[in-house]
Amino acid sequence: MSSNGSSGQHTSVDRQTLLSLDHIRAVLIRLEDTIVFDLIERAQYAHNPPMYAPGAFKELREKENWEASWVEWFLKETEAAHAKVRRFDTPDEYPFTPIEQLPKAILPPLTYPDVLFKAAVVNANSRIWSWYRDDVVPAITRKHGLQADDGQYGSAATRDVEVLSAVSRRIHFGMFVSESKFQSSPADFIEPIRARDRVKLEALITKPAVEAALLVRLAEKAKVYGQDLDTLLAAGKQGTAKIDTEEVVRIYRERIIPETKVVEVDYLLKRLEGLSEEEVANLANRR
Amino acid sequence: MSSNGSSGQHTSVDRQTLLSLDHIRAVLIRLEDTIVFDLIERAQYAHNPPMYAPGAFKELREKENWEASWVEWFLKETEAAHAKVRRFDTPDEYPFTPIEQLPKAILPPLTYPDVLFKAAVVNANSRIWSWYRDDVVPAITRKHGLQADDGQYGSAATRDVEVLSAVSRRIHFGMFVSESKFQSSPADFIEPIRARDRVKLEALITKPAVEAALLVRLAEKAKVYGQDLDTLLAAGKQGTAKIDTEEVVRIYRERIIPETKVVEVDYLLKRLEGLSEEEVANLANRR
Repeated sequence: MSSNGSSGQHTSVDRQTLLSLDHIRAVLIRLEDTIVFDLIERAQYAHNPPMYAPGAFKELREKENWEASWVEWFLKETEAAHAKVRRFDTPDEYPFTPIEQLPKAILPPLTYPDVLFKAAVVNANSRIWSWYRDDVVPAITRKHGLQADDGQYGSAATRDVEVLSAVSRRIHFGMFVSESKFQSSPADFIEPIRARDRVKLEALITKPAVEAALLVRLAEKAKVYGQDLDTLLAAGKQGTAKIDTEEVVRIYRERIIPETKVVEVDYLLKRLEGLSEEEVANLANRR
Repeated sequence: MSSNGSSGQHTSVDRQTLLSLDHIRAVLIRLEDTIVFDLIERAQYAHNPPMYAPGAFKELREKENWEASWVEWFLKETEAAHAKVRRFDTPDEYPFTPIEQLPKAILPPLTYPDVLFKAAVVNANSRIWSWYRDDVVPAITRKHGLQADDGQYGSAATRDVEVLSAVSRRIHFGMFVSESKFQSSPADFIEPIRARDRVKLEALITKPAVEAALLVRLAEKAKVYGQDLDTLLAAGKQGTAKIDTEEVVRIYRERIIPETKVVEVDYLLKRLEGLSEEEVANLANRR
């Protein structure tokens, strides 16, 4: 999140930088480290199924009027604080909590450069939450036992919020990729957008070689950051890794990358919304 | 934090385990990984001095009645949410925010085993906050430039809260060390406690060899977790580390370890408070 100084009248990154593919790539690569760190931290606790069950805590229902799950309550509390300091004014941050349940900003609105096409912006967090809860958490906590419960609901939920925030930011950053590629040759996009051709649009923004390199890099990060250095240093041999490298790679391959593509394509499909025929024709002539 | 299930009537760890030196050692070693991860995450942003200046944000003063700093506001907001789910009922979690500024728990009180001697419990967070702000943050962010400002106040403060929570937990865990060692031979402690002999008390709970091994292990963790794997994988050579290994070791050696010892000794100095002569005599006879 990029909450700026007291008066919020400056931003540190300009529009051109935000849309440069080098900048976007650097952000996405740095986020890999964050996501791996956060997954490792979550994986030290058990699955703890009651944390994810709606209404499982009667005190949250009765005293906080909260019918959703324990983790969603942590998300809401965190996002409420951050909304006050306008985290969600920035184009790379989207809340899991419905925006109408969050407080208004107390800082003046950010004069952020208009990087994304507003009418096309999408929020994929409800899907992210579903597969995080149903797939990611069980997968990374399996070593503690299936559906195991260690009672560490506060610590585990705090880590869930960190993973979800980083993963959400990573996935929504896909809109910068879409906008950047759209800007660089809008004419290529107009026909497939009008034809609602998801396959074509995905092909325009995807580079299989980049994706393959990502998965190799990610496996290395999970292996290096997740190793048990304590056993290695104390006994000179490999201990049990803090996280399963294969699972981290799988989460990216089966969840994060496909979800990013959905966001990228959904964004593109709405990229011409509200534009006049003349505006679209002008875009078509920009090469 | 160990917030338990919906009715909070069970805890996953019993008193004997909590005071076993093996358990304590395992927690402290695992926390090293967390602290190194968190420091690396904070170090990706600049120093951002306005975040630490009391009253620097007029909106926080005017709309939130908050005279302290931006980061302390983030701490308060986070701790307020966690206080509602009784994070600070557990004997290893202490808030930075004055307890009277935090809301009451909405979950029923935890029936946590009485591990620590209540009258002796200390809270070192105001000192931790001071040296974190004045030494740790400038040290780990120096690579961005002295007193540099990147405007990323929200992201940076979120990381500050994570570092501070982990460091605080690590330091207050020293009270478990003190209690464990006191329990194993109370007679050794009674005279130095009565004589207010800090040096003797520190000697009773400190193992220089353990400390030396910790610093070696920590250097390795900072080096491994902080390396630039991207450059290594892409170009086959070492890039710029995400954090300076020497600084991480220095923070432990000059700040975290000495502060832990202060907490350990402060705790011991109050360990006989409120006990009758007879109770102390009974302890003295327990070998």
